[in-house]
Amino acid sequence: MPALFTLDALRDRYAARPEDVLDVVEDVLARIAASRDPAIFISRVAPEELRAAARDLLTRAPDPARLPLWGAPFVVKDNIDVSGSETTAGCPAYAYRAEADATVVEKLKAAGALLVGKTNLDQFATGLNGTRSPYGAPRSVFNADYVSGGSSSGSAVAVASGLVAFSLGTDTAGSGRVPAAFNNIVGIKPTPGLISAAGVVPACRSLDCVNVFTASVADGVMVRRVLDGFDARDAYSVPPAPKGLPPRPRVGVLAAKDREFYGDAESAALYQQAIARAETLGWATVEFDYAPFLAIASLLYEGPWLAERLAAIEPFLHAQPEALDPTVRGLIEQARKFTAADAFRGQYRLKALLLEAETEIKKCDFLLLPTSPTIYKVEAMLADPVRLNAHFGRYTNFVNFCRMAAIAVPSGFRADGLPFGVTLIAPGQCDDALAPFAAAFHDATGCGSGAAKEPVPAKVAPVADGRIEIVVVGAHLTGQPLNGQLTDGGGFLVESTRTAGDYRLFVLPNSTPAKPGLIREPGFSGAGLEVEVWSLPADSFGRFVNGIPAPLGVGKVTLASGRVATGFLCEAHALRGAREITELGGWRAYLATLA
Amino acid sequence: MPALFTLDALRDRYAARPEDVLDVVEDVLARIAASRDPAIFISRVAPEELRAAARDLLTRAPDPARLPLWGAPFVVKDNIDVSGSETTAGCPAYAYRAEADATVVEKLKAAGALLVGKTNLDQFATGLNGTRSPYGAPRSVFNADYVSGGSSSGSAVAVASGLVAFSLGTDTAGSGRVPAAFNNIVGIKPTPGLISAAGVVPACRSLDCVNVFTASVADGVMVRRVLDGFDARDAYSVPPAPKGLPPRPRVGVLAAKDREFYGDAESAALYQQAIARAETLGWATVEFDYAPFLAIASLLYEGPWLAERLAAIEPFLHAQPEALDPTVRGLIEQARKFTAADAFRGQYRLKALLLEAETEIKKCDFLLLPTSPTIYKVEAMLADPVRLNAHFGRYTNFVNFCRMAAIAVPSGFRADGLPFGVTLIAPGQCDDALAPFAAAFHDATGCGSGAAKEPVPAKVAPVADGRIEIVVVGAHLTGQPLNGQLTDGGGFLVESTRTAGDYRLFVLPNSTPAKPGLIREPGFSGAGLEVEVWSLPADSFGRFVNGIPAPLGVGKVTLASGRVATGFLCEAHALRGAREITELGGWRAYLATLA
Repeated sequence: MPALFTLDALRDRYAARPEDVLDVVEDVLARIAASRDPAIFISRVAPEELRAAARDLLTRAPDPARLPLWGAPFVVKDNIDVSGSETTAGCPAYAYRAEADATVVEKLKAAGALLVGKTNLDQFATGLNGTRSPYGAPRSVFNADYVSGGSSSGSAVAVASGLVAFSLGTDTAGSGRVPAAFNNIVGIKPTPGLISAAGVVPACRSLDCVNVFTASVADGVMVRRVLDGFDARDAYSVPPAPKGLPPRPRVGVLAAKDREFYGDAESAALYQQAIARAETLGWATVEFDYAPFLAIASLLYEGPWLAERLAAIEPFLHAQPEALDPTVRGLIEQARKFTAADAFRGQYRLKALLLEAETEIKKCDFLLLPTSPTIYKVEAMLADPVRLNAHFGRYTNFVNFCRMAAIAVPSGFRADGLPFGVTLIAPGQCDDALAPFAAAFHDATGCGSGAAKEPVPAKVAPVADGRIEIVVVGAHLTGQPLNGQLTDGGGFLVESTRTAGDYRLFVLPNSTPAKPGLIREPGFSGAGLEVEVWSLPADSFGRFVNGIPAPLGVGKVTLASGRVATGFLCEAHALRGAREITELGGWRAYLATLA
Repeated sequence: MPALFTLDALRDRYAARPEDVLDVVEDVLARIAASRDPAIFISRVAPEELRAAARDLLTRAPDPARLPLWGAPFVVKDNIDVSGSETTAGCPAYAYRAEADATVVEKLKAAGALLVGKTNLDQFATGLNGTRSPYGAPRSVFNADYVSGGSSSGSAVAVASGLVAFSLGTDTAGSGRVPAAFNNIVGIKPTPGLISAAGVVPACRSLDCVNVFTASVADGVMVRRVLDGFDARDAYSVPPAPKGLPPRPRVGVLAAKDREFYGDAESAALYQQAIARAETLGWATVEFDYAPFLAIASLLYEGPWLAERLAAIEPFLHAQPEALDPTVRGLIEQARKFTAADAFRGQYRLKALLLEAETEIKKCDFLLLPTSPTIYKVEAMLADPVRLNAHFGRYTNFVNFCRMAAIAVPSGFRADGLPFGVTLIAPGQCDDALAPFAAAFHDATGCGSGAAKEPVPAKVAPVADGRIEIVVVGAHLTGQPLNGQLTDGGGFLVESTRTAGDYRLFVLPNSTPAKPGLIREPGFSGAGLEVEVWSLPADSFGRFVNGIPAPLGVGKVTLASGRVATGFLCEAHALRGAREITELGGWRAYLATLA
């Protein structure tokens, strides 16, 4: 087995020999035993129990191909319920025995994944650094003097050190992204509500997301898709409604005035390098104004949203204040000063800032930001725990307020060997659409994954994003008079190509603006006709099609590649006696003859 | 002029003689002078100023047909800013001179409407009864012993007594519906955010709606459409995205266990009568569980949302507590006891209740509820101001929490002559779609409008609701194997009809399930073919069209009525040699020959 478990590698191995799952379990146990970081776990599944689960899997689901995560070992952050186990949320005095699995754990077990244990965290998921836990501070897999990042500290380190194939964290301020950056792995932070938080100890319940850590974007997306879906047990659950992104995206990057790396010039340079890399990938980078996002970010720890953390544990905090980590307690107790009127004023402020942010977001398709501006040693963090922690959240805190989807990926290394990461951040429900960009970026960095910098797949299988393609042939082509009908509806150009050879093109008599009529003639053998394939959201596509006047309509058009897509056709009766222009090869060529 | 101004009547009159606007202004002034209710206005536009505005309109927009509300006199509730006038919100000590028009006032003036004055209200829009104002208590136009309803008291009475053609109120708990019921007029309460609240004194800013009072639904919709639209000045603004309702709706009505009329047996009987009337209109009535809605309703005055009212006026309340109406002050001061943690817990409770409510809402297309369970005398209200006021909100308070659209219409009269009203309540963005049902219901009641029970138009011009129609001819017909593609996508049957005579129908070879191909043949003269017209949301329509396999497609189909709609067509090449079944008249007739 390579240094990191990946779902692809496990799948191949299990396809050949399902019973290898028993060996994988032994491998996991051996790796845990050999691990040099004693602070990763809060509790572990007993070895015998884990072996039994693997044997049970072989019995109940003998065909590994039938379950998407068959035999994949994983861990969950210890603020996520596992039936029959304690949930501590990083606070022993708070611990309770969970009576049921969290929805996410239930789904992973059903998908064939094998739970290995529950991981360390900043207490009550309050922190981005990993030191705020009585169970010890996990360390960056690159240097044990440095923090692991948090609050999902143990989950990130478990994946980065190759103990398991994936892990779950939770992410309110950036807890599923910052530790990914500090350990050179991928953190998938879904659109808020896309993954159920039922059975998870709340931090800020209106903002909390369950997130996935993996070696690769492809693996993370696979796990996320198992977890997606509306859950009536979580009032903040939202049904998936995937949105698309154009193939040549405009990518928002920080302007010089907004770049703050707290003196870490190497990270600043690595961010500049990431922008250059984005450009080599063919992405158009666009500077935007980060000011409204920074203002939104500050609401999380400086405003009334702190009261969500208080609301989550108020009776416990009242009964046993001394049981909390002093830094966590100090933060949460600040919430007492906020009144309900303050909370509503905070909502108004957020609403106004979201409007401003929206204007900036519209300048691009997704953002490319540093995950964290820098990293600190454990010692430094403990000495100045609130201020230095806040630095980590500078580019992460706003994301869940904006209901956006994010994927944190490795981006480079400082001279001292510590990793630097970036996060791609797209509008809500772009989770699937964002993934191929994140995978391509990760691949281009050459960082690999985890402590071992293990190479990972560069591709993510494309998925339905709710958009529909339409083949246009005449007045809707780029630069032609009706092209605005496509761009106004949120359309983008997918490709310029030709039809298959058995299509003929005619000039429609009496149409304004002038339009061609395309018709298929089986047996006819031509060179194909110039067309463009455009992508539209389903509703825009529907309105577009409904607006097409007779004798035009849409049906299936076969392209030169053999691909079949919806495209313009013409009623045959309208072409009787019309001038045929097939031999010109397309509408633009015909127009050129008129010029 | 009839007893009530209506937009239709004014339009006809102005079309003949625009300068009649000067007479209308004199008529308005005379009606105000003759009004027996001294508590309607807080301030009035000076007669000379009103006359000047009318003359100015004649000059700047001489053609009345060019502006949708040309020469229509109106009033606004005195929590809405008018440039250069005082805004009191019903509290003289709070009053300020507005520097700019509220967005709604700006839009109405631009549309040619003439502002006549600013109306009385329950102070800070806190109340549903109309007695909580130092400017006096307006009375029901049917009996001066009874409350007018509130908080938009003056605005409702001004329309019901025929002083103006329409008025604006605001509606948080029901302030735009309850006074409509108590004065036998129409109250249009839009989807929250559809009409900008910029320049309006907030009550509960996250819930506040500007509403419209008119004699008829048609007039109310006309005014609402002038006001619709995203406004960057209001962070709670939402862009219009109209949704449709089926022509034969399922209408949710209260089950016996949920009917509470506080001892008013006549109103209870009138509600039962309203249900029977709905059934005679061809609507299917469905009982639903009101419990989650009642729980949501109670959040407004019993929970942390009171703190929104506090947030709106906190410095003023702190500085001059004695300047408030004692009941209003008593309510708002209760908000001081709520912490920010309480506010968030309230949000969680709301989220959970909304999920429960959603399950009930899905059982029907819209709800038909009593607007108010009963009405009280001013004297009784003053003696027990909080408890009796709460009764009025029993069926209104939940609506804005659920982001729903509502239209209050007259429904009948008690033996003592006092009116009873009902409200139609539909999911957000169904504002336009709901209007024809409200108009038909109002018409069926025979109540007319206002004090004079003046007859009003029964129709509302249909508008685009974002749905798209598709003509189906074969396997998608009702009962046929692919019909589920339409119903699963939220489709409903609009009509069963035939095509125009120049269409021919063929049996497609080798299609599964069996399908026909429809083709237009200009010059061919047949009897037309059996088709069904279905309505789909635009996105479902888009996905449906994209799923159609070659050689089928969609284009424009002409129906027997001459109407043209998008519908199934077939590529001509696929029908060569196919069996023609035109003479059978349709696909079902063909299938019958096989049976």
